[in-house]
Amino acid sequence: MTFLALLRHGQSQWNLENRFTGWVDVDLTAKGEAEARQAGAFLTQSGVAFDKLFTSLQTRAIRTGNLALENAGLAWLPVERSWRLNERHYGALTGLDKAETAAKHGEDQVKVWRRSYDTPPPPLDASSEHDFSKDRRYAGVKDLPRTESLKLTLERVLPYWNDAIVPDLRAGKNLIIAAHGNSLRAIVKHLFAVPDDQIVHVEMPTGNPLLIELDAGLKPIAARYLDDARAQKLPPMPR
Amino acid sequence: MTFLALLRHGQSQWNLENRFTGWVDVDLTAKGEAEARQAGAFLTQSGVAFDKLFTSLQTRAIRTGNLALENAGLAWLPVERSWRLNERHYGALTGLDKAETAAKHGEDQVKVWRRSYDTPPPPLDASSEHDFSKDRRYAGVKDLPRTESLKLTLERVLPYWNDAIVPDLRAGKNLIIAAHGNSLRAIVKHLFAVPDDQIVHVEMPTGNPLLIELDAGLKPIAARYLDDARAQKLPPMPR
Repeated sequence: MTFLALLRHGQSQWNLENRFTGWVDVDLTAKGEAEARQAGAFLTQSGVAFDKLFTSLQTRAIRTGNLALENAGLAWLPVERSWRLNERHYGALTGLDKAETAAKHGEDQVKVWRRSYDTPPPPLDASSEHDFSKDRRYAGVKDLPRTESLKLTLERVLPYWNDAIVPDLRAGKNLIIAAHGNSLRAIVKHLFAVPDDQIVHVEMPTGNPLLIELDAGLKPIAARYLDDARAQKLPPMPR
Repeated sequence: MTFLALLRHGQSQWNLENRFTGWVDVDLTAKGEAEARQAGAFLTQSGVAFDKLFTSLQTRAIRTGNLALENAGLAWLPVERSWRLNERHYGALTGLDKAETAAKHGEDQVKVWRRSYDTPPPPLDASSEHDFSKDRRYAGVKDLPRTESLKLTLERVLPYWNDAIVPDLRAGKNLIIAAHGNSLRAIVKHLFAVPDDQIVHVEMPTGNPLLIELDAGLKPIAARYLDDARAQKLPPMPR
């Protein structure tokens, strides 16, 4: 029996401005920082003795993890980071205001890109100011994504899940993953075997850890949001 | 050629109160947090592309590293922590006010414990409120120290230096070590081959990174404090 806490970063500046953020390295707002600290208090209240933190390579998730751990007296936990836990790459939508995007591409098309499981937006142009291939943190990454659907996000999360996270869970370690709405939904989809057409109904709240209890086969046997006041609908436990 | 930045944590609450801190997990003061952020600005100004952060298991060094990296846009760097980078363990002096200690043991004895290379204070009593063997972060550590001289500090830093840090330096990685006055003095003593009776003259300033340039054999060929205004005397370059 082991525990996994999925922690979506608190509010970022672009959440606030309603822009497609994806891989842009936007920082937390003051509200987002407070959410992260509060998440640390929820982790403490859970009574689980956490052993390790995983994060993406994006500042808003890293700082959420740092602030939560610091507030839980767990700053000393080992931490491992990977680009594979990054937010979904929004391709050509990156940086666009959501209203502008709707005006440009039509509400219906934008809805497809946002809500369908396997339709990625057009790829990010190499001339874009958001061309992440020049970012030193991704220097070692082959085939850096230029756009992603949730399906493609899951496909690049999965190797890291299997190679880095599963071995720790099998060793009985209690883990925290501080990451993003879509990389965490990808993990939930995988763990709970959520059908492709149902994952759209799973939302990850910010700063409200989803604590999942796993059996020895790493099948979820219980799950709850640690902030009772902001509980969300959970996918059914897999059989 | 590779670079190593040694960063001593900023002011902690007990620095302020002039108490022997050692392994007690005291947090930074607001001034200490500001020093850590400023250290991040110095790291940026150095122009060195850092690849990785090492820290102790103590909150004040971890938060110093976090705040410095965040302010340098480097929150995403991989990080590795070890108890072997912890502050010197002050044994029975742990938690005592420095004036009280002098009144109790005599100024001369305290000076020996503080300044001699190889005389440790009496060991920490197992009944002390500061008995670190009950602290979960040290659960895996055999033969946890109960007191240390600087010599004993160096002896437990060295295996980690050789096994974890040296391989990264040999691979050409530029590293930051966020740690403590005495664990960093131990590294300086080792790197610069400072004689036992001279290391007492080496002081590590808080929040002012010491940037050391190493040749292929990991011999220091240049070194400077990044805050020019607070430069300290450096040991001579080893031949």
